Amino acid sequence: MHRTKVRVVEDALDANNTIARANRDDFDRHGVTVVNLMSAPGAGKTTLLEASLCEPLGEIRVGVLEGDVQGSFDADRLAALHLPVTQLNTDSGFGGECHLDANMVRSALPSLPLHDIDLLVIENVGNLVCPAEFRVGEDVRAMVCSVTEGEDKPLKYPLMFRTCELVVVNKIDLLEHLDFDLDKFLYYLDQVNPGVERMLVSARTGEGVEAWRDWLGAAAREERVPA
Amino acid sequence: MHRTKVRVVEDALDANNTIARANRDDFDRHGVTVVNLMSAPGAGKTTLLEASLCEPLGEIRVGVLEGDVQGSFDADRLAALHLPVTQLNTDSGFGGECHLDANMVRSALPSLPLHDIDLLVIENVGNLVCPAEFRVGEDVRAMVCSVTEGEDKPLKYPLMFRTCELVVVNKIDLLEHLDFDLDKFLYYLDQVNPGVERMLVSARTGEGVEAWRDWLGAAAREERVPA
Repeated sequence: MHRTKVRVVEDALDANNTIARANRDDFDRHGVTVVNLMSAPGAGKTTLLEASLCEPLGEIRVGVLEGDVQGSFDADRLAALHLPVTQLNTDSGFGGECHLDANMVRSALPSLPLHDIDLLVIENVGNLVCPAEFRVGEDVRAMVCSVTEGEDKPLKYPLMFRTCELVVVNKIDLLEHLDFDLDKFLYYLDQVNPGVERMLVSARTGEGVEAWRDWLGAAAREERVPA
Repeated sequence: MHRTKVRVVEDALDANNTIARANRDDFDRHGVTVVNLMSAPGAGKTTLLEASLCEPLGEIRVGVLEGDVQGSFDADRLAALHLPVTQLNTDSGFGGECHLDANMVRSALPSLPLHDIDLLVIENVGNLVCPAEFRVGEDVRAMVCSVTEGEDKPLKYPLMFRTCELVVVNKIDLLEHLDFDLDKFLYYLDQVNPGVERMLVSARTGEGVEAWRDWLGAAAREERVPA
């Protein structure tokens, strides 16, 4: 029984990866770098994007694909930044999925202004489990982890922390009011993803946001260099 | 295509509900009240249980079923309270599920000391989406929402907030350091689940924890009254 179930899961992930590769080919053809941005609910993905994309990112044109179970709360916030923002809801036709998958992103491709952007940030559904299992066609993965969530999160959700190229540790303005042990968190982080790039940020105060902007810019420029 | 997919999802949820009812029958037969405790990662479920179960709950004997993708981090914390704690991992044989379902809980029944407890708290996997979709045999559902997660969570994850009998608003000791608008949060909460019972708590300072203990006690006593 269990063996069969595991096989089914593997098949589903294989199918997802095939579609993810097709998405990535389409993004590459347009010279668009794609960042899959993930976190738990309320870790501050949208606030980080607001804080970092309120001013132009140099010459790089940015678009956002906003993933939510339902509603357009975050997309409405980001649209105020005068960026092209596309909303993708997982509850219509997908049964209320807790993550984006490659097929959902594929269905959104016709709505994305791929000719007019260099960088697409895909804000995934807030969840530390399934989004890590499903590639959507991204070049790089970044996650936001809030210091309010406790030090143990890398150990409890290792796949998420292991598959990201960058961990943004957010809400550091609250550190003095928490029992959060930053050294212990970083120790756990290195246990599951040794040496992974990390940055300390407060999207609210702006501290560290420039480093995140630099990272986004570097990711986009790396993609734009002709192969 | 979409219609077929929705049908498959409905079938899976029907099958889950059948097993959930069987679980509930078994719990009822033993006179055990079951609370399904849910939240986003890091909202403070385990800390709340530590703060509230460190002293006996009157005459009520409490056990905990601890759901995690992997590891026994939280179970180890709770075992220090000298409660019967059973760990249930979703990554073994289930493919790393982001929620508990009725079948997983059923597989744990033989490990639960049902003869020796009156109240079982099932600490679900940290996730605001799928745990809300899967009944596991509980009598009541409670969720923990941290004020650090922002006011918009009821609107973004409505099913979770709608299907709970109690919303514990945690980490209120941090309110003075946040931009969180409590009135706005409660307004959104009433939009998705009008008048749902709610309590303001700081598991860290102990504020409001007695109300949560009272709620647990009342839930257990209600179950024990012979029908």
